[in-house]
Amino acid sequence: MSIKIGIAGYGNLGRGVECAIKQNPDMELAAVFTRRNPESVQILTEGVPVCRMEDAGEWKDRIDVMILCGGSATDLPEQTPAFAKMFNVIDSFDTHAKIPEHYANVDAAAKEGGKVGIISVGWDPGMFSLNRLYANAILPDGKDYTFWGKGVSQGHSDAVRRIEGVKDARQYTIPVESALEAVRAGENPELSTREKHTRECFVVLEEGADAAKVEEEIRTMPNYFADYDTTVHFISEEELQKNHSGIPHGGFVLRSGKTGWNGENSHLIEYSLKLDSNPEFTSCVLAAYARAAYRLSREGVSGCRTVFDIAPAYLSEKSGEELRKMML
Amino acid sequence: MSIKIGIAGYGNLGRGVECAIKQNPDMELAAVFTRRNPESVQILTEGVPVCRMEDAGEWKDRIDVMILCGGSATDLPEQTPAFAKMFNVIDSFDTHAKIPEHYANVDAAAKEGGKVGIISVGWDPGMFSLNRLYANAILPDGKDYTFWGKGVSQGHSDAVRRIEGVKDARQYTIPVESALEAVRAGENPELSTREKHTRECFVVLEEGADAAKVEEEIRTMPNYFADYDTTVHFISEEELQKNHSGIPHGGFVLRSGKTGWNGENSHLIEYSLKLDSNPEFTSCVLAAYARAAYRLSREGVSGCRTVFDIAPAYLSEKSGEELRKMML
Repeated sequence: MSIKIGIAGYGNLGRGVECAIKQNPDMELAAVFTRRNPESVQILTEGVPVCRMEDAGEWKDRIDVMILCGGSATDLPEQTPAFAKMFNVIDSFDTHAKIPEHYANVDAAAKEGGKVGIISVGWDPGMFSLNRLYANAILPDGKDYTFWGKGVSQGHSDAVRRIEGVKDARQYTIPVESALEAVRAGENPELSTREKHTRECFVVLEEGADAAKVEEEIRTMPNYFADYDTTVHFISEEELQKNHSGIPHGGFVLRSGKTGWNGENSHLIEYSLKLDSNPEFTSCVLAAYARAAYRLSREGVSGCRTVFDIAPAYLSEKSGEELRKMML
Repeated sequence: MSIKIGIAGYGNLGRGVECAIKQNPDMELAAVFTRRNPESVQILTEGVPVCRMEDAGEWKDRIDVMILCGGSATDLPEQTPAFAKMFNVIDSFDTHAKIPEHYANVDAAAKEGGKVGIISVGWDPGMFSLNRLYANAILPDGKDYTFWGKGVSQGHSDAVRRIEGVKDARQYTIPVESALEAVRAGENPELSTREKHTRECFVVLEEGADAAKVEEEIRTMPNYFADYDTTVHFISEEELQKNHSGIPHGGFVLRSGKTGWNGENSHLIEYSLKLDSNPEFTSCVLAAYARAAYRLSREGVSGCRTVFDIAPAYLSEKSGEELRKMML
């Protein structure tokens, strides 16, 4: 019997989850829920209904896990607790500072509904967090580094698009190779914001816009660009479509540490991701944790969990016996 | 109240565990157990007794977790089940083919004693296994690669030392850089044994030994060297001491996979370790899992577990609340 998955929200992430379900033989897509007019939404899977978000409650007994594919700013803080009263839920809530609050809300709702909610699932937060935790537990005397990229930052691209005279834009976050190398060499550098990442913008101007003025506005934008070395390229709309329509991302989590009676030996733990599609990879992580939520729920667990609280075996389709034989 | 750790077996690994305990403020070393004459064993921690292995039972109520630091060939298959009847235990059993059998033995013994036993803890098996599991669960449609090194292989060094005319030797396993790069480039290469690793030997000859004969014997040794490109260097005893007395190791676990409705996007997950001291790093992993065994035992769990069955949060000294706030 396969795990029946619902998708709430059908943007890049929702479509990614739909693709991930296709790759996992023990899962099937039960329904997609949208705030748009369902008739306007065309999904990839044949024979699966697209329903109105507010009718989700009717699916209470026909869905094992609901994967919430909305945004962290306004969707998930409301949706995840609301759905956790009715469904086992997974989300990719990524506003780091608000995780404790979100956790408390989802925990209360999930307990009320007797359901499991797993929050902040993806790669950061998610797989990067896990690697920080493992590496810290193993090397207590050490130093952490996280680098992001090379990849498209949606937030920074949006910030550039809001500038007057900008028609469209794509912003790449790029780790500074020499900084990465210094960490790998065990130099334990202290790195400023500017020393860790550079930013590269590809900008399509509105007709008649002042390129020099736009460039100056980008470079000096507080929080987003002022603390970074930023390169701005002006390109045509065609070039943007052709060369910059993907959503790649990735990054590196490193921890260097000392062991030995007098700290005489050095070690480096490095985890990295190179992703053609940020939302599709995040979706794959969501699908794996949906399996965990389903299993935990069947064991009678309720309440909120994060990736920290889930034993790795719950993510795999394989049995404990198979895992020990094949992967240990 | 700190976790009282016992160390059974005081070689490189036991000494590494002793150093790891010093770095973990919530742990203390209770006693070291040895098969040698305890009076002949000098440990690093002041005021801690060195006891005879066969007297360990007397410490049943004074040790929270016993870390078994013997070898996988003959020590652990006997010691881990025997100790699991009396103590929560951790071992680094690494004979991959015999893990299911070892698991069954430890599980039965630990259940009989009402204790927790965590086996095959270290980096491979251990952290590498975890990364294989996570990456497989996330990218079902993909391909796994594990490379080891650059590092000293104890088994291969021993094999060279057994050759007539060899006084001492050190063997390094080295991943082939071009193979690693092909994997990173998403080429999904099929790699033969020879294409993945090379072997480099540093050999000290007995007086009057025939270098050409020794080299030939090394290169053609079945299982150990015949399937590899092997380089042999003859050096002096002094040079071996000076440049090859460390026990570095490490390696890479990679998984490349496809996502998207038609597998149109590629992803690469890479985990790597660069270790100055193989036994000290393994010891650090053992110490972190000792914390998990202690906590699981206090929750009333008994039986055998592996790294696959342990939620990451159990490894960390920090509370769930702190972890969510600081590391998620």
